Parts: sequence; C-alpha cells; structure tokens
Amino acid sequence: MRLRIIITTILLILGISLLNGQETEKIIKSIFDAALTDQTAYKHLEYLCKNTKGRLPGSAAVAEAVEYTRQALIKAGADSVWLQKVPVPHWERGHEECRAISSVLGIADLTISALGFSVGTTTDGLLAEVIEVKDFNELKNLGRQKIEGKIVFFNRAADNTLINTFAAYGGAVNQRIQGASEASKYGAIAVIVRSATNALHDFPHTGVTRYADDVTKIPAVAVSTVDAELLSRWLKKDPSTRISLISTCMNYPDTWSYNVIGEIKGSVRPNEFITAGGHLDAWDISEGAHDDAGGCVQAIEMIRLYKSLNIRPKRTIRAVMFMNEEMSGTGGRTYAAEASAKGEIHYAALESDRGVMSPRGFGFEAEGERLEKLQSLSKWFQPYNIRDFDKGGGGSDISPLRTMGTLLIGNIPDIQRYFYYHHSANDTFDKVNIRELQMGSAANASLIYLIDLLDM
Amino acid sequence: MRLRIIITTILLILGISLLNGQETEKIIKSIFDAALTDQTAYKHLEYLCKNTKGRLPGSAAVAEAVEYTRQALIKAGADSVWLQKVPVPHWERGHEECRAISSVLGIADLTISALGFSVGTTTDGLLAEVIEVKDFNELKNLGRQKIEGKIVFFNRAADNTLINTFAAYGGAVNQRIQGASEASKYGAIAVIVRSATNALHDFPHTGVTRYADDVTKIPAVAVSTVDAELLSRWLKKDPSTRISLISTCMNYPDTWSYNVIGEIKGSVRPNEFITAGGHLDAWDISEGAHDDAGGCVQAIEMIRLYKSLNIRPKRTIRAVMFMNEEMSGTGGRTYAAEASAKGEIHYAALESDRGVMSPRGFGFEAEGERLEKLQSLSKWFQPYNIRDFDKGGGGSDISPLRTMGTLLIGNIPDIQRYFYYHHSANDTFDKVNIRELQMGSAANASLIYLIDLLDM
Repeated sequence: MRLRIIITTILLILGISLLNGQETEKIIKSIFDAALTDQTAYKHLEYLCKNTKGRLPGSAAVAEAVEYTRQALIKAGADSVWLQKVPVPHWERGHEECRAISSVLGIADLTISALGFSVGTTTDGLLAEVIEVKDFNELKNLGRQKIEGKIVFFNRAADNTLINTFAAYGGAVNQRIQGASEASKYGAIAVIVRSATNALHDFPHTGVTRYADDVTKIPAVAVSTVDAELLSRWLKKDPSTRISLISTCMNYPDTWSYNVIGEIKGSVRPNEFITAGGHLDAWDISEGAHDDAGGCVQAIEMIRLYKSLNIRPKRTIRAVMFMNEEMSGTGGRTYAAEASAKGEIHYAALESDRGVMSPRGFGFEAEGERLEKLQSLSKWFQPYNIRDFDKGGGGSDISPLRTMGTLLIGNIPDIQRYFYYHHSANDTFDKVNIRELQMGSAANASLIYLIDLLDM
Repeated sequence: MRLRIIITTILLILGISLLNGQETEKIIKSIFDAALTDQTAYKHLEYLCKNTKGRLPGSAAVAEAVEYTRQALIKAGADSVWLQKVPVPHWERGHEECRAISSVLGIADLTISALGFSVGTTTDGLLAEVIEVKDFNELKNLGRQKIEGKIVFFNRAADNTLINTFAAYGGAVNQRIQGASEASKYGAIAVIVRSATNALHDFPHTGVTRYADDVTKIPAVAVSTVDAELLSRWLKKDPSTRISLISTCMNYPDTWSYNVIGEIKGSVRPNEFITAGGHLDAWDISEGAHDDAGGCVQAIEMIRLYKSLNIRPKRTIRAVMFMNEEMSGTGGRTYAAEASAKGEIHYAALESDRGVMSPRGFGFEAEGERLEKLQSLSKWFQPYNIRDFDKGGGGSDISPLRTMGTLLIGNIPDIQRYFYYHHSANDTFDKVNIRELQMGSAANASLIYLIDLLDM
C-alpha cells in the first residue's frame, strides 16, 4: 500500500514535470515562431540605421535615436518606459585628409578616420616623416632620437589565424587605444594606426584613443588596412616618405544624454530585475547596424514578444538601451549606480553587443555548479541549433552590475564577419540578415524567460 | 618482468597514439592557418562571379568558367587535371515582361524570371485572368471549369518558422517544379509561381520546372515575393485582374559541356578515391557566388592546401567541379557512370552546395556504428567551433555514387540567410565573407584529411 502511494507520487511528479517541460518547450517555440514571422525589429533597425546614422553622444542623431526607441518600447507594450540621464563626452570629427608623399614614388591619398577623443591638427595640418612600428617595445627601442618630430605609424595586423575574432581584435587594439600616448612620450607629433580589424579593405575603423594624464596630446587617426599595407610598402622603398595630415576634430565640453529603459513588471517578484540590452550610441561614420542598433532592437523585441504572447515573467524584465558605450561607458555605470543606490536586486543581465549574425549560444560569467546548471539550459535550444553555452564574459555595459552579484550573460553570435563592419562605414543596415536578427531576438527572449522561470 | 614488458608496451602504444594525436591536431591547425591567411580561393570566387556570371550550360560564360577552374587546379598543384565531357541541356531566357491590369486598381509591373526548361510565350505574349491557389489540391478542387484559359498563380509561402531553411524551401518548391504540369492538366495557359524563398524582397528566384510527358507545355515564371503579395492583394480587391505576360525563353538542342577534375595521386592506395566538390554551373540571372562558385573554389583550395602544406593523402583525392547541377544533374551522373564503368573504388564524397556561410558541421549518410565513428571526428573541430556532426544527406551531384557504396557527406554551413541569395540576382560576390569562405575551405580539407588518415 505504501509502495503504491510512493509510486503514484513519483509518477505524478514525473508527469507534472513532463507536462511542465512540454509547456516550456511550447512557449519557447511560440517565441521563435513569433520572432521569425514578424518584421517589427527589422523595421526598427532600418529606422535607426537610416535616420539616426552616426549617433554619437552630443549629436542630433542620438537625440532622435533616444526618442525613437522610447516610442518603440511604448509600442512594444512595456508597462513603463523612461529615460535615465547620463553624462556623456562630446567629440566631433572635422575635416580629414591624409597623403603619403615620396620623391621616389609620388603621392598617394590614404583613407583615414580620426580616433574618438583625439585632438585635432590645425586646419593647415602637419607634414612629417613617418616611422613604422609593430608594438610599444619597438617604439621604446627606437627611443626619442628616432621618433621625435615624426609621425608614428602603428602597423601590427590582427592575427587572422585566431578563430575567435574578438581575440584577434584584442591583440591589435592597444595600438589604437594607447598608441598616441605611447608615441607622444618619445616626442612623436601624431600617430596613424592600422585599423583594428581582420578585414583587408578600404574602410578605416575608428574607436577611442585614450591619453595618459602626463603626455602631450597628439592627433591620432586610423588608416584602412589596404592603405596601411600601401604605406608600409612605400616606407620600405622610400624611408623618407612623408605624410601630410589634416584632421580638425575637436573635444567639446561634456554634455548629457540618456539610457532608454522599458520594463514589464514582474508578476511574482517585481523587485527583482533581469535586464537585456545593447547600446544605442554608434560611431559617427557608421549606421551602427551590427554595433549595436541590432542589440537594441532585439531588446525591444523581447518586450514585444512577451507582451504579444502574454508571457508574464515572475521578475521585472527590463530592456535597456545603454548610452555612450563606445566612448566612455557612462551609460552602463549610471545604470548600475542608480540600481545600487536604490538597493535593487539585479538577478541577471544579458548584453547583446557582438553583432546580430546567427546566434550560436551564450557566455555566462559563472563557475562550477552554477555554470553547469546554466549550461544545461542548452537542451531547450537544440531545436534551434543554438548549442554553445560557454563560460565567458557578459559585456562592457552590464559589467558595472558585477559587484551587485548579478549574473552576467553575453549573447554569442557567429562572429567570423563581425570585424568587417565594427566601427566603420561598412556597418550598414543591408549587412544584417533579417532571419539572423530574428533568431537572435528569439534566443535572447527565450534565455531570459528560462532564467526567470527556472530561477537559474 | 613480464608485467614490466606489458606495461612498457602499453605506455609505448599510448605514447605513440598521443603523439599521433598531437601530430594530427597540428596538421589540422596548419590547414586552418593556411586557409585563413590566404586570398587565393576568394580571388577565384571573384573571378567566377564577375567574369563568368550566369554560367548556364551552353553559354559562353560556362565555357570560360570551365577553362578558368581547369587553370586554377593546375596552379593549385594538382598532379593531373582534366575535363570530363557531359551532355547538357541548352535553355535561354528571352525578353520578360509581366503586368497586372485591373480596371479598378490600375496597372502594376511585376518582377519575374522565367523558370528553367520553361517554354516561352509568343513575342506578343498573352493576356488572361488569374486564379490564385496555394497547392495542387486547391487546383484540383477548382477543376477545369474555373481554370481553363487562365493563368494560375501559385502563392504558397515558405514556412518561416522552420529553423531548417532547406525544409522551408522544400515545402514550397513543388509549385515551381510541378506547378506548370499540374495547372496545364486543367487547361491553364501559363503559371506564375511565388519565388521559392523565405525572403520577402524584390528578387525573383528562378530554378527548373519539369513538364510531365502527357501535358501541354505552358510558360512558367517565378515572381518576386513582394510582387506575389501585391498580386494577391489585387486579386482580393479585384478578382477580374488580368495579367499580361511576355517571356520569350527557348529550349535549344542539347549540347556538351564538362566536369572539371583535378586530383592528387594517393601515396598508399592510389586506386581508392575521395572526392570533394561543388557545381560550376549557375543560373543565368546570377553570379552564383554562394550557389555554387563558393563550393567549387573550396574544392580547388583543398588541393592548394594539401600541396602547399605537403600533405600526402593515402588515397587519391579529387576536386570535382560538377556541370549542370541546376538543370538536370548530368554532371554528377556522368561522373558516377564513368567511375562505375572503370571499376573505381570511391571511398567517400563530400559535396559543398549549401552556400559558403560559416561552417557549422557536416551531414553523413551513414548509420549506427559507422555514423558514431564519423561523429567522433567532431572532437578535432572543437577549436574551430564546428560542432554539428549529424546524420543527413550529401548532395545531388554525389548522390549517383551511392550505389557504389561511397560514403556521402554534405558540408553544413549556417543556412539562415542562404535562400536570400539562392537562384537569384542577389547571389553576388559581395554576399560572401572571405573568412566564412576560408573557414569552410579549411573544414572541408580537414575532414577529408581525417577520413583518409583514419580510414573512417
């Protein structure tokens, strides 16, 4: 008799969890079905790319993007939508011209793009000899004697044998970030940096440079990889090749912009928060389609999907469009500071800022048993060929939440082609495939749903 | 003492197999490194796209593509390169015009593309009422009375909720292949078929139609999905909307073309063959970048990689550029027939004809233990994020080898965006990312290397 009760109980529990499993599977399928048959997110992306191109903090474009996404969150059905004031830098590109001049080889125009925060040249520009280096060690070995009064040309290429293209980028990008400071120490008057990309093409890729406090600020520009190769060839043939450089960019006083936030109130634990988002700002030369309008519209789409499918999460779910990721990350820091000041419990945060190519999986900032539990979620994504549930970083906008014990998650798409777009004029709307975008929206919304449902 | 000998022997064997494992790992890494740092395959692709666009059998473009790839195989270092004569059909597109005419709604031009093998209209074209159907059952239910003298408009969309986009295509494509025959049975005078794609865009997607022997051949064209939606809306508002259609395409007498084959002689078992390839022909309206110049240049690249890395396979390895996959598959059948007639042992064959987006894995036509063994190869591909080793089809060009007991393998890329290009003018060189192409080349070359090395 007791045995029968035990068996019945076991079967009942099994039955319920089986039913729950089927129900969960069905809800995830409904999320994918709805995402894959709707164009709303894609149309938002088109608007942001075509009408708010170059939305750097301080620009009219960024103000337009803030207002547009605020409206989009309202239309998506968010329970509340608001703007969070964020202090931002204000830097503007000026006139740009760069020319290699050789008495042996002639004259060649080089395609450049000033780096964010760079100081400018005068309107007359400057003219100087060039010295090519691959890294800071080489710079140090050359010393002030060889460098003073010259333009330093950093030309270390990204390592194309690395499968992780972010690692390839990471291996090259210190030239862009610290190159001007390092060269200035030895008296260089400007730096030209090979674009931090594994692409060999004509687009210069910009991004920030940062000056150390104790150096003279010198102009810094990125040159396209094709023209970096050209310049390097010229310097081998004629080491006295000079560069004439005009870049009249300017730093202006700091100003204000906004994080754009929309939320669905939690049905059980409204005071616990799960956020998903990307960053709304984009480089001035770019539509910022993959980087990162795509991540933003996927977060808005999560709200639309939950509302249209009547999914009622236990916790409060927020879509956050962070401001100023590209220049100094004040959007992410402001968000975390306010959350901390209010004593909010931030349960988990998902960042989508690696482009919106086909989703391959997620990276979790977790260890041991918790990581294993999170990795076990991959079973729900098997039907969608999303299989890579790995240990790995969340993203720069959500990282300030780390100290609050928030689980940080990064969306991982197929990244092989990402750096062909990143920070360049090549990052346009037409480079995003609607299905790849939709798949990513569905993957993000499904993961957040599961983490909330299963208290992961 | 004996125990010591046994232990020593075991350690020795373990040591050797460990060393072998490290050696194999190193060779695979060398293949990926070499592929990821070389532009040869990408330049071949550019040539085929830009100089042999629209290479249908019987065209000057296809003759140019045959000669170009023959030369490319020689340059890649193949031990021998030859052409294999293949009987091919010869069909040519003519002038195309399609217009919806409604006394209520006005006139709208529709973007169309005649289907391969379709008969043409007269140069004056035809003008008739249109009847929209979703499938052959609906056609049957309407019957001759409702259909005779009209143009049938097949408008069943691909199912966008299917993650496998090939399944979505498969669910729609019978309208294109059998639609003309089916409609003709009931007296239709032409068919307009919604393009078999999950894209909603302005490109018509062509492909073959096949006439049954016992029907009157009627003209058949594909219409872009955007214009299919338009036509459908018009027919709802004005069922008497007529279509004027001109499509002066023509079938000409069969002619000849070639498979292009290059091989590396096996160092141990030269009389056993492993082939890898794609198809060289492409639709006349298309550069055929993803479909399938990409597959061809990856096969040539395999030869180049083996030769430049001094990899000496045990078996003879062949790169085969099949002719006429698109229209009637005579290239694949000719290849298999000759192999069979010569009594050649074809150990394995890999087809790359699903586009050259990032590689995700391989499909094997195998069962049980053999499949498991093949799936165990995935461990070598973990560092390259190529993880999907599944049971699944090889491809249409290698399928005639099946009866010879050949292991058939299909390359599986990320297929979410493939049908945005397939059989359309949208399948252009710029839609291929060089890294995604290179990753596929390396994956194919590595798999063939392992299958040969490990006698899988």
